[in-house]
This record gives sequence, structure tokens and C-alpha cells, in this order.
Amino acid sequence: MSSVLPATIKFLQQPTTFAWVTQALANLDTILLDHSHCERKAAGVALNLMFRYPSNAQLVRTLTAIAREELEHFEQVNQILERRNIPLAPLSAPPYGAGLKAQIRPAEPHRLLDSLLVSGLIEARSHERLGLLASYCPDGELARFYRGLMASEARHYGAYWVLATTYFDRVLVEQRLECLAIAESDLLADLHPEPRIHS
Amino acid sequence: MSSVLPATIKFLQQPTTFAWVTQALANLDTILLDHSHCERKAAGVALNLMFRYPSNAQLVRTLTAIAREELEHFEQVNQILERRNIPLAPLSAPPYGAGLKAQIRPAEPHRLLDSLLVSGLIEARSHERLGLLASYCPDGELARFYRGLMASEARHYGAYWVLATTYFDRVLVEQRLECLAIAESDLLADLHPEPRIHS
Repeated sequence: MSSVLPATIKFLQQPTTFAWVTQALANLDTILLDHSHCERKAAGVALNLMFRYPSNAQLVRTLTAIAREELEHFEQVNQILERRNIPLAPLSAPPYGAGLKAQIRPAEPHRLLDSLLVSGLIEARSHERLGLLASYCPDGELARFYRGLMASEARHYGAYWVLATTYFDRVLVEQRLECLAIAESDLLADLHPEPRIHS
Repeated sequence: MSSVLPATIKFLQQPTTFAWVTQALANLDTILLDHSHCERKAAGVALNLMFRYPSNAQLVRTLTAIAREELEHFEQVNQILERRNIPLAPLSAPPYGAGLKAQIRPAEPHRLLDSLLVSGLIEARSHERLGLLASYCPDGELARFYRGLMASEARHYGAYWVLATTYFDRVLVEQRLECLAIAESDLLADLHPEPRIHS
């Protein structure tokens, strides 16, 4: 379980271990259901940011496009769940999301910077892990589905990065990103016992 | 100002008065900006309902489609604002939204029923008022834009109605809708001094 896959996503400090891939492949139904929740939550996060900064035209434009794509993916995952007779059901969240949220400094302008970078990191990690599922999932339909999502997940973390460097000095963004990326990898250092996209 | 337009939307107890049309046409920039906020809020309401009832497959499916369309309209209104050099800016909300929210009974299953019917009423009123703008707006581009939105606003209130009658007895739905529709019309009985889609 100690073998690691090559790091290909430059935002991320540590690549996902093979232990996660093994856990995910052994629990694909739960991973699919959690993926549905993740897409809905990602749309919610983009929308909440738009509500908090309704006058930042570039932010609003970018996040509208992201929220629309997340909802499209949410619909697609839900169609797969339906075809496989996996009922929509609540799932307990792993500590990842709350742990990252705790890193967001509450006072502006830090709050905006941290919110954009945390969202970017989550998208980067999702991109990496969906890529692993695309490579290792023995179910052809799912592998194709995950591969199909990768391009837009990559666009999303790029878009959050561009927004951060639009509103903040690039050196400051890079420094803060490094701190947050370390925290993000730390949160995933021990595999969470419940299989999740971010376990 | 006492003349009224014919009621064409059967959900609504009272049709919009011509006073609103006059106010809106005299303040089209503000109405456009408020319309942008309304579309974003409508997407947020649909998403929040999905978060509250994540296991109701039909509700989730319907509201995903609605949220996606609202975000598409949000993007379209924002493009018009940009072309007209109207900056995205916060606007104080009229009492309408909070007044309707206060009608939602807090305990389930009333909360779900009331939430669906209140959303349906807001969509019905938006449909009626965008239709009035489509008919009376002297600006051809805007009139066409409003006309283009009407079909989906009508679909939305129909969809909320279908969801309500899916989860609740039809007679109960009709009784509650009548109460809420009276409250909705009462909230608009006196024209709010600030021009808004729901002033």
C-alpha cells in the first residue's frame, strides 16, 4: 500500500497513493454516489462565491460557467446511478472538506484568496483521482465517463488559479497556494476508512 | 394607475398592475440588474432544495434542470449588462422574497410542500412580468430577450407544481397553493418604491 503514482498535477504537493485506488475500485457504487454529492457541492461552492462577490464581473462569469458544468456532470453521474439502480442517498462526508474550509482565513481579502485556492485544490485533486479511476477502473463505461470529465476538471482548477492571480499578486498567490497544498495533502495522508472521492 | 392587465397565469391570484409596468419601463437598467440577481437567486434556491432533499430522485432531476437553465439565463442577462456598460452591483432586495419565505412552515412535510409552491409562485410571477416587458418594452433587443425567456419560466412553474403533486395529495396542494397565492399577491398589492422584478 505504500506505492505511489507519479505526480502529474502541479498544484498538488503529494500524489494520491495506490491505497486510495484500491479502496475506490473495491467500492465503486459508493464512489459513484459520493461523486454525485461532490458535483452538487462543487456547483454550490461556485454559486456561494458568486453570492458573496456579486460585483466581481470576471469572477461571476467564470464561476457561472463552472457551476453550469458541475451541474451537467451531476446530471450525468445521476443518470449512471439510476441505470445501475443505486439509489440517491445521503453519505457522511470525509474530513477533507471541513479540514480545507478551516484553512480559509475569515477576514477579507484573505478570505477570497483562500476560497479560490481551496476550490482550485479540490478541483485539482478531483482531476487527479478521476484520472486514476479512468486508468484503473475495469468497468469500461465508467472508465470512459471519468476520462470524459477530466478535461473540464482541469479547466476548473486552471480557472480558479487565473481568478486568484487576477485579484492578487502572483507571488502572494504562489506562497499561499504552497501552504494550502501542504494542508490539502496532509488531510489525505491517512486513508479515511470510508471510501470517498476525497477519502 | 388603477388599470390592470388580464390575468393569464392561473397560479396567480391577482395580475400585475400597469403601475409596475410603468415603473419598470422607466428604470430598465435597474430592472436588468435586478433580473440578473433574480436568476442567480433562483439557481441558488433550486440548489438549496436539492441539498435539503438529496435522496428524492425526481426532485433532484427536475431541480438540476431548472438550476442549469437559471444559470444560463443569468449568463445571458449578464452579457446584456456588459454590452450596456451596466456594472454588476448589489441591489437591495424588495420585501417580496423575505415575505414569501416567511410563509414557509418550518416543520416537514409542510416545509417541502410550501417551498415547492413558493418557488412555483415566484416563477409564475416572473413569467407574467417578463411577458409584460416583452409586450411593452420599446427596446427591441430586450423585448426579444424577455420573450425568449418566457417559455422556460413557464416550464419552471409547471415543474414545481408537478413536484408538489408528486409528493403530496392534489387537493392538499390546491388548498395550500390558494393560501400562498393570496399572500403572494398581497405582497405586491402596493408597488414597492424601488423598481425591481418583484416590486
